[in-house]
Amino acid sequence: RVNADRLWDSLMDMAKIGPGIAGGNNRQTLTDSDAEGRRLFQAWCDGAGLTMGVDTMGNMFMTREGTDPDALPVYVGSHLDTQPTGGKYDGVLGVLAGLEVVRSLNDLGIRTKHPIVVTNWTNEEGARFAPAMLASGVFAGVHTQDYAYGRKDPEGKTFGEELQRIGWVGDEEVGARKMHAYFEYHIEQGPILEAEGKDIGVVTHCQGLWWLEFTLTGREAHTGSTPMTMRVNAGLAMARILEMVQMVAMENQPGAVGGVGQVFFSPNSRNVLPGKVVFTVDIRSPDQAKLDGMRTRIEAEAPKICEALGVGCSVEPVGHFDPVTFDPTLVATVRKAAEDLGYSHRDIISGAGHDACWAARVAPATMIMCPCVDGLSHNEAEDISKEWAAAGADVLLHAVIETAGI
Amino acid sequence: RVNADRLWDSLMDMAKIGPGIAGGNNRQTLTDSDAEGRRLFQAWCDGAGLTMGVDTMGNMFMTREGTDPDALPVYVGSHLDTQPTGGKYDGVLGVLAGLEVVRSLNDLGIRTKHPIVVTNWTNEEGARFAPAMLASGVFAGVHTQDYAYGRKDPEGKTFGEELQRIGWVGDEEVGARKMHAYFEYHIEQGPILEAEGKDIGVVTHCQGLWWLEFTLTGREAHTGSTPMTMRVNAGLAMARILEMVQMVAMENQPGAVGGVGQVFFSPNSRNVLPGKVVFTVDIRSPDQAKLDGMRTRIEAEAPKICEALGVGCSVEPVGHFDPVTFDPTLVATVRKAAEDLGYSHRDIISGAGHDACWAARVAPATMIMCPCVDGLSHNEAEDISKEWAAAGADVLLHAVIETAGI
Ligand SMILES: NC(=O)NCCC(=O)O
Ligand SMILES: NC(=O)NCCC(=O)O
Repeated sequence: RVNADRLWDSLMDMAKIGPGIAGGNNRQTLTDSDAEGRRLFQAWCDGAGLTMGVDTMGNMFMTREGTDPDALPVYVGSHLDTQPTGGKYDGVLGVLAGLEVVRSLNDLGIRTKHPIVVTNWTNEEGARFAPAMLASGVFAGVHTQDYAYGRKDPEGKTFGEELQRIGWVGDEEVGARKMHAYFEYHIEQGPILEAEGKDIGVVTHCQGLWWLEFTLTGREAHTGSTPMTMRVNAGLAMARILEMVQMVAMENQPGAVGGVGQVFFSPNSRNVLPGKVVFTVDIRSPDQAKLDGMRTRIEAEAPKICEALGVGCSVEPVGHFDPVTFDPTLVATVRKAAEDLGYSHRDIISGAGHDACWAARVAPATMIMCPCVDGLSHNEAEDISKEWAAAGADVLLHAVIETAGI
Repeated sequence: RVNADRLWDSLMDMAKIGPGIAGGNNRQTLTDSDAEGRRLFQAWCDGAGLTMGVDTMGNMFMTREGTDPDALPVYVGSHLDTQPTGGKYDGVLGVLAGLEVVRSLNDLGIRTKHPIVVTNWTNEEGARFAPAMLASGVFAGVHTQDYAYGRKDPEGKTFGEELQRIGWVGDEEVGARKMHAYFEYHIEQGPILEAEGKDIGVVTHCQGLWWLEFTLTGREAHTGSTPMTMRVNAGLAMARILEMVQMVAMENQPGAVGGVGQVFFSPNSRNVLPGKVVFTVDIRSPDQAKLDGMRTRIEAEAPKICEALGVGCSVEPVGHFDPVTFDPTLVATVRKAAEDLGYSHRDIISGAGHDACWAARVAPATMIMCPCVDGLSHNEAEDISKEWAAAGADVLLHAVIETAGI
């Protein structure tokens, strides 16, 4: 078993970097806080005897040598970046549990045949630069590095400039590494495990996603002196599209979600009808046909809504992954580890996207989940217990030993 | 008649300060550009022999002496501040036409019995600090100065700090001045005069307004892993309230408008359901019963919409004025001036709020309007012709001479 206290203390120490305003974290990717978090993680890895490699996307790979010089490494990782009002565990748990696995192996004097590489992927959240899982996506060949470098935050700064600025452009070619297997341990971010009193989620699939960025063009005009009939009201069109997205998601129950987290009005003045409204629709389903059906439906309905109001409508997909089926052998390994350790468990589908979804395209991959209080995540109040954190790390330890070989 | 070219040149010179991004202006109140605009206006007034007084709200009063030492001044004014993406004429025309009236009187060697005071009111737009017409509101005793000083812009800076910072806190007690009459010349900001081919709007009334600032409290949660049934979706509640406001406004046709220009999502991240949505509903009508009826209806419906979604709902009025009836004698003076000058004219109700609405509470007041292209305002593309500008200024000149006496 891992050292539960040590894992917890590391989580608490990392949470001091980039504190939020309500007990959580604001350690968004490629900020100064992100750089500080990376340095702390690097120092811990140094202490555990790991060797660092960094690629041109800023992905950090911390290697514990194996006994077989020809064996490909087993990768264990997640992300240290957070949402602007994020929790202390989303992503961080997976990286620090990877470190804890190595520390435990060191304590126990266990050497594995395959090397073990603890990984921190850059910009998993996609909060500052869409899409999410950007750097693992480049690693897996889904995006080009040029595309990634050109992504802009709301202030117009590019990913490439900001990676340079914080000093984490590495020298490794991105995606050059080959993996024997990839494990990612993460909080569920949903309510199922807690509700059913299960210690461990054995993640068999991940639902797919589309992020559809709408740009609605209305006519800036005075809210007082512009008659109702003369308005080209992009804000009203946005409202109707939000309602339509809700309806489409509800019609696809169970097994689908849809919503909007980001809206920008322009010029955003109380007495000016907006000339431009930009917002992103987030739709997901583990069922490919449902996912694509929802997209088609929304992209067909939105222009009709806009047309009725004279509003211009353009849509650009700014994030996408298909539903993922994780590697059955690794899934069975995780299930057996939970079983052997005496932890209650159930198979589960990940509601959120994860770097594992991209890693699964280039290697056998899977995930392990632990419950989180009230299923709450992307909220500073996100919470887990020390015992929950440790249980998943124990399962990770056993699954890694099984896969890396002794 | 005024000097049309000189008036136009002054308008074009002022428009160079705080340029917008699409041919208009961004000279928001209490910015460095506002200070620069004030200095240019001050220099022009110096050149025309006017004496400056500034009150503690930063209102500028530029006096041309009268021949009767006991006669109260005739005030002529509007505002030099603009929307973030505003036009070159909204407000500015009224101030610079006031200056042009004085310049023309100088040219003609005409002295009036009553002094004439050309006025620039601070923060008419309300774009940076709600409510609109803030400083004329304090002048008229509608708001206290403490209230005004404490108003915050979206970055949290207060009106008081910013007035101090740009160096325009005057020494006059606000509201101490007494007025014989107040005239405000403004572009219509609506489509009626242009559509009917009228040169002049004789403004008899101004419609009333409520700005209702809603704060909706949802639960920040992951857009992917949070089931539809577990969402506390403040964004969806906002969308439904926007649709309801539209419906309420349409039910009150003709003679009412309703819309939303400003929306803030928090944390405004694509994969986080918003924990908080703040937006301002703008409703107006010249009919007091309709105006208050719309407010009552919206304030009754919105909590029901929110309750059905489990969303918290609070509402604060951040702007208000009742419908205004302008002074019948001054209105008749304006109508007669237009008639005498041979300009086509019609009576009109102002759709926008103006400093004249507050001035009307402490003095006989009225307004003059000229057409604007497509009725467009609060848009950088706002446009008028030199001839339109000059016609209203001619009417203003005649109305002022009539009222100030020779
Ligand atoms: N795990 C997680 O929150 N990832 C962010 C990408 C997503 O929105 O699913
Ligand atoms: N004239 C004008 O645009 N004033 C701003 C206040 C309002 O919204 O009516």
